[in-house]
Amino acid sequence: MRYLDHADPVITLTTGPVNAYAEVLRGLSRVVLYDHDPAFQLFYEKTVAKAQAAMRLSTKPVILQGEPVMGLEAAAASLIAADDVVLNLVSGVYGKGFGRWAKRHSPKLIEIETAYNEAIDPQAVADMLKAHPEISVVSVCHHDTPSGTINPIDEIGAIVSAHGAYLIVDAVSSFGGMKTHPEDCHADIYVTGANKCLGTPPGLTLMAVSERAWAKMKDNPAAPRGSVLSILDWENAWSKDRPFPFTPSVAEMNGLDVALDLYLKEGAEAVWARHALTAKAARAGAIAMGLSLWAANERIASPTTTAIRTPEGVEEVALRKAARERYGVVLSAGRGETLGKLTRIGHMGPTAQPIYAIVALTALGGALNALGQKLDVGRGIEAALAVIDAEVS
Amino acid sequence: MRYLDHADPVITLTTGPVNAYAEVLRGLSRVVLYDHDPAFQLFYEKTVAKAQAAMRLSTKPVILQGEPVMGLEAAAASLIAADDVVLNLVSGVYGKGFGRWAKRHSPKLIEIETAYNEAIDPQAVADMLKAHPEISVVSVCHHDTPSGTINPIDEIGAIVSAHGAYLIVDAVSSFGGMKTHPEDCHADIYVTGANKCLGTPPGLTLMAVSERAWAKMKDNPAAPRGSVLSILDWENAWSKDRPFPFTPSVAEMNGLDVALDLYLKEGAEAVWARHALTAKAARAGAIAMGLSLWAANERIASPTTTAIRTPEGVEEVALRKAARERYGVVLSAGRGETLGKLTRIGHMGPTAQPIYAIVALTALGGALNALGQKLDVGRGIEAALAVIDAEVS
Amino acid sequence: MRYLDHADPVITLTTGPVNAYAEVLRGLSRVVLYDHDPAFQLFYEKTVAKAQAAMRLSTKPVILQGEPVMGLEAAAASLIAADDVVLNLVSGVYGKGFGRWAKRHSPKLIEIETAYNEAIDPQAVADMLKAHPEISVVSVCHHDTPSGTINPIDEIGAIVSAHGAYLIVDAVSSFGGMKTHPEDCHADIYVTGANKCLGTPPGLTLMAVSERAWAKMKDNPAAPRGSVLSILDWENAWSKDRPFPFTPSVAEMNGLDVALDLYLKEGAEAVWARHALTAKAARAGAIAMGLSLWAANERIASPTTTAIRTPEGVEEVALRKAARERYGVVLSAGRGETLGKLTRIGHMGPTAQPIYAIVALTALGGALNALGQKLDVGRGIEAALAVIDAEVS
Amino acid sequence: MRYLDHADPVITLTTGPVNAYAEVLRGLSRVVLYDHDPAFQLFYEKTVAKAQAAMRLSTKPVILQGEPVMGLEAAAASLIAADDVVLNLVSGVYGKGFGRWAKRHSPKLIEIETAYNEAIDPQAVADMLKAHPEISVVSVCHHDTPSGTINPIDEIGAIVSAHGAYLIVDAVSSFGGMKTHPEDCHADIYVTGANKCLGTPPGLTLMAVSERAWAKMKDNPAAPRGSVLSILDWENAWSKDRPFPFTPSVAEMNGLDVALDLYLKEGAEAVWARHALTAKAARAGAIAMGLSLWAANERIASPTTTAIRTPEGVEEVALRKAARERYGVVLSAGRGETLGKLTRIGHMGPTAQPIYAIVALTALGGALNALGQKLDVGRGIEAALAVIDAEVS
Repeated sequence: MRYLDHADPVITLTTGPVNAYAEVLRGLSRVVLYDHDPAFQLFYEKTVAKAQAAMRLSTKPVILQGEPVMGLEAAAASLIAADDVVLNLVSGVYGKGFGRWAKRHSPKLIEIETAYNEAIDPQAVADMLKAHPEISVVSVCHHDTPSGTINPIDEIGAIVSAHGAYLIVDAVSSFGGMKTHPEDCHADIYVTGANKCLGTPPGLTLMAVSERAWAKMKDNPAAPRGSVLSILDWENAWSKDRPFPFTPSVAEMNGLDVALDLYLKEGAEAVWARHALTAKAARAGAIAMGLSLWAANERIASPTTTAIRTPEGVEEVALRKAARERYGVVLSAGRGETLGKLTRIGHMGPTAQPIYAIVALTALGGALNALGQKLDVGRGIEAALAVIDAEVS
Repeated sequence: MRYLDHADPVITLTTGPVNAYAEVLRGLSRVVLYDHDPAFQLFYEKTVAKAQAAMRLSTKPVILQGEPVMGLEAAAASLIAADDVVLNLVSGVYGKGFGRWAKRHSPKLIEIETAYNEAIDPQAVADMLKAHPEISVVSVCHHDTPSGTINPIDEIGAIVSAHGAYLIVDAVSSFGGMKTHPEDCHADIYVTGANKCLGTPPGLTLMAVSERAWAKMKDNPAAPRGSVLSILDWENAWSKDRPFPFTPSVAEMNGLDVALDLYLKEGAEAVWARHALTAKAARAGAIAMGLSLWAANERIASPTTTAIRTPEGVEEVALRKAARERYGVVLSAGRGETLGKLTRIGHMGPTAQPIYAIVALTALGGALNALGQKLDVGRGIEAALAVIDAEVS
Repeated sequence: MRYLDHADPVITLTTGPVNAYAEVLRGLSRVVLYDHDPAFQLFYEKTVAKAQAAMRLSTKPVILQGEPVMGLEAAAASLIAADDVVLNLVSGVYGKGFGRWAKRHSPKLIEIETAYNEAIDPQAVADMLKAHPEISVVSVCHHDTPSGTINPIDEIGAIVSAHGAYLIVDAVSSFGGMKTHPEDCHADIYVTGANKCLGTPPGLTLMAVSERAWAKMKDNPAAPRGSVLSILDWENAWSKDRPFPFTPSVAEMNGLDVALDLYLKEGAEAVWARHALTAKAARAGAIAMGLSLWAANERIASPTTTAIRTPEGVEEVALRKAARERYGVVLSAGRGETLGKLTRIGHMGPTAQPIYAIVALTALGGALNALGQKLDVGRGIEAALAVIDAEVS
Repeated sequence: MRYLDHADPVITLTTGPVNAYAEVLRGLSRVVLYDHDPAFQLFYEKTVAKAQAAMRLSTKPVILQGEPVMGLEAAAASLIAADDVVLNLVSGVYGKGFGRWAKRHSPKLIEIETAYNEAIDPQAVADMLKAHPEISVVSVCHHDTPSGTINPIDEIGAIVSAHGAYLIVDAVSSFGGMKTHPEDCHADIYVTGANKCLGTPPGLTLMAVSERAWAKMKDNPAAPRGSVLSILDWENAWSKDRPFPFTPSVAEMNGLDVALDLYLKEGAEAVWARHALTAKAARAGAIAMGLSLWAANERIASPTTTAIRTPEGVEEVALRKAARERYGVVLSAGRGETLGKLTRIGHMGPTAQPIYAIVALTALGGALNALGQKLDVGRGIEAALAVIDAEVS
């Protein structure tokens, strides 16, 4: 048999959109309330409070009504003024992309760029800040998803904070899947999403904004106002006594509310642990069956994505096609510069379960062998199992 | 008994967010597919084709990943260039608001403004275009929801088309509830939404773009690109062979797909008929019980919203509060200039059913009497019933 | 317009199947667990505990895997032995029907039968028990739904208990909508359902069984065992440590669990109050518009069903057809002897909201007038409103 | 990490209850219609027609409102009269169990019994019928689920048909997952369910009844009537013009309707193929990793269940507990005589996907190794993969 293009696959193990928790999908079907209805306003305020708890914030987070790409664009547009000097840290495609947004708002852009399978060295940041005391905004992508690699944002954040610059963090695909919180890394704007590790469908941005970032945005005449790109418009929208700037995505909010309940009930530490274990099993299995990780070393490999280098002589599109056709398993491609060079297994939200590492390894190994490779899939499965079994407490 | 603020009301008869069809709410719970998965790409292409059929378009519509406020802002930003002379037609709060977006992109803004319970006179448009041959863009709101009034866009569109200017139409809360299509009114950009009359939760914009509008936007260097506000980025997103500019709102698309199926299956004419009949019954009932319509005359009263003038001496907030507390029925307030002056009953999608006119009239009448008015609610109900009974074919 | 047969109606206000709460419908979609899975066994035990709380029982209730008709048949088959003398109290079609089941298991059946719009007089029961000390089992239907009338089971129960006979109570369509609990009426077997006032789809029986009823059933060699009609098989199924006699209806259990949460959270007294108020408004409205109640007096009219006598010269089928075709509102017919003689409005679970009394009265009055009656519908609505307004606390 | 008892497992691969298709679970949430509503009556008639198509029947199937255990008990009670001589064919726990029901209705029971890992030999049936020409009813279980073995019912049916006896077939866990239809095996009563291979939650029986079986039941005065165990009561319930004997399980019917749509749309042959391939991969993998199948030979191993013999020295309960705790995977135990002796992997409906054979083998192998076995799990996975890859067309 062969899974057809028009039929849904059996298991989707991508890096986004990520399938949502079944409970969240059901939550989307709640009745749609009027956004001025007191029941909705109370609900919205409570959901924001849950997001605040999940983000371990001392202030109210902002929920923007669009995928995190909206949040990142809005952050650049709101926080970066024409006279800012921006240091953008680049270890992958997403980090690089943020630089383009930054440049729209200020011509003075400095970048530190590593190879796309490496991570930013905090010392390099410290050195650069010393060399350029005029740097006023620093931006960094925590988990550069197209590479599956993690930057040390808590360390970087401490350095930036000491320097006094504002820090913008893209934690879209790391938050909720590993230990990271806006205040841990001294972020002034910290952007994450409801999809990815929270396990809600794509369509909402969660954003932490520091007190001084609010002040800077208010001082910035070019910061969007009266716009879907505005952060300022939403400053007080969390309060049941304040109207929304425009109609919020009610169904997505209903889903997010369930997702936050799940996260808080399972317990952050338990959620992170199953992301970490799934990724560890995936890495061990991939290596054991004869594949190479994309990440230069395991220390910087993300617990929410495992990126595996495409073996010599393999066409990456054919690889994913074979995995889907033969086993009904969908994996993610690379993106931009990493496209074709790697295949990614997502471990996010509902798919961050060790058994899915087995599924992914089987599909990946089987597909590669179908394309003529000679991988020892069985050995890979055993190595993954050994990792899982070692962590049975 | 008294319905409490924190409990869901029994029936929501607002003008947006509007409750969604039960089938659509269930549709939101479909599994979330990867946006590069062939099954999702085929699905997306098919859904766009359904939207095209519903909009009776000869070209592919664009679906933007945000509430129609995003579509309207994007239309202004993309189509209006610095050297355009814009004629904005204002018969209400939403029409007026569009002028502010227009002004951001071109300083040359001319407006025709009527009282907010009147409609634009096509002759006035013709006269203005004659007087100002330099006008290059005209914008008009079809159904100015805060007033519940309809502008004659097909007539206006013919005049604008003859003049040669580009036409931007806001048909957010009329499309799907009455006879209106982009090509009927010669619109160059026609913006509507998935919420309102299609009965999907808020979160998506449907947009028709004429060939010459595509060309004008491409020529406009200031038109957003690489932005959530970009229309251009989505030009070819409908095709299963083209990637999305960023992750679409998968769940909302799943819901829209069901909503379009419902609309096409019931048949547009049948859908419009129940919107029209519900509104007609609501108007007859309101008048019979001693209330006044906001609209200067019934001809311009919307089939999707009935706006009723707040009686002398009544606090409008108290009115809606009483309707909710006593009967569990939620109605809409006015907005901006119409706030406090009127109460609105939505007849959109699942609530465009004549029996809901009875529910709304009862709640409205009962609430007003509780505030000391002396309305003859019974007479109102009988008048509404007479309208409904008269149209039993 | 005219609602077509094949299209779903707008509002269903029947006496069963009753539409379910939206939350319950979503609950049905929970993943289906294996019935031996510890998570399911814990869930089942918890749900039974919630049912016990709702029924205010000192023992564990039994949940049978079928509509309450299964529970009633099982009660007769299990409790009534060949040598029992059964007194069956008949005030309607359902009470009468139970006698036929009773007769299958014991030839000695005595009945007290009232007109089907009257209630059983407790004194008559006391007299009969005195005259027939050999009576060992008494059966009574609390709410004889085809009549919409209530029997005084707490009083009857006290008399039966003093006599020492076993009492079987059919509380299918009263429990959850008014104050009634198994131990309040000294029931030995008390049968209710998940549909009706709890607002779950039909498919489950909730049953209370007294200690002495368990003993009597165990002593009865003819009591079903190893059968879907067995009560005995389910005695310990509530315990997470005991297997189920056969596969339970997992989805229905998921729905029931949500329904019990809703009931316990809203608070029994609040739930009963909205049932009572809805019925009171319906009765007042019906009388004011010129109709007659079926119940001989309002004291015995059920808070969960309002039965209205079919006016002279009206064909009842045509009446309900007109209500559905014109207004999209579905009402219930009579049944057996009451068929054609009355129309019933259900006030159960999600439809026990006063605004639905208005909907029902409008549809009923409008339909009757369409058939040539001359009812004052407006006066009916005003009378119903007056009842609702009088109880705003 | 360790999956806790109270948390839902990740993947359930049992033999019943089986998880339902996601589309079916959503279908359960459809609005609950009144069972006398024309829309429901039309819907019910259409759903029965779909069941008829799926069962490839020339007559209307009956849908009983309970798990198939109800259908089997009802079949015995309705068809077997006191003077019937019944031949019950026993190759497992379920076949044996049917004999007990048969014996309730006729004292004359003959059995052919094989070892519980063997299948019935058609020749033995032919010989027995020759030896006992008085045999008037034959009963057989197609797939004895507690053994995971298949009896050759088409061959047996031809023999029984030639003899002239009535044939009762239990195809509960085979229909929908392999080629079997009531008329292929000359069944007079053929019982299957909505759960198992159709992928609906448990709660409904689908039953085919031959013309002569209807006649025999009508002639049988002891056949249940006016009972939830009655088949006769439902003879005409499929017709939109006939009332239901009692309230049907509306939500379950809504789910079944979706399940039948899925089955007919995917195509029976395609559905059977993925069941067969999943089972074949599971068997190959189990053998390759060093385990033994329960079935005496692969020819009689079911395509819907793979039963694996518990290795010497292993406690079967501990095995399934380890699979759940370590990997979140739930498998089925044996039942009755097979309890403890085997573990079962279900391949039914949504779980009949080859990738789930990998999941099951990994969980089973990992769990056994955790209990001290020395299985070569990797080899098992490779063997299963080889089976899957060999059938890529």
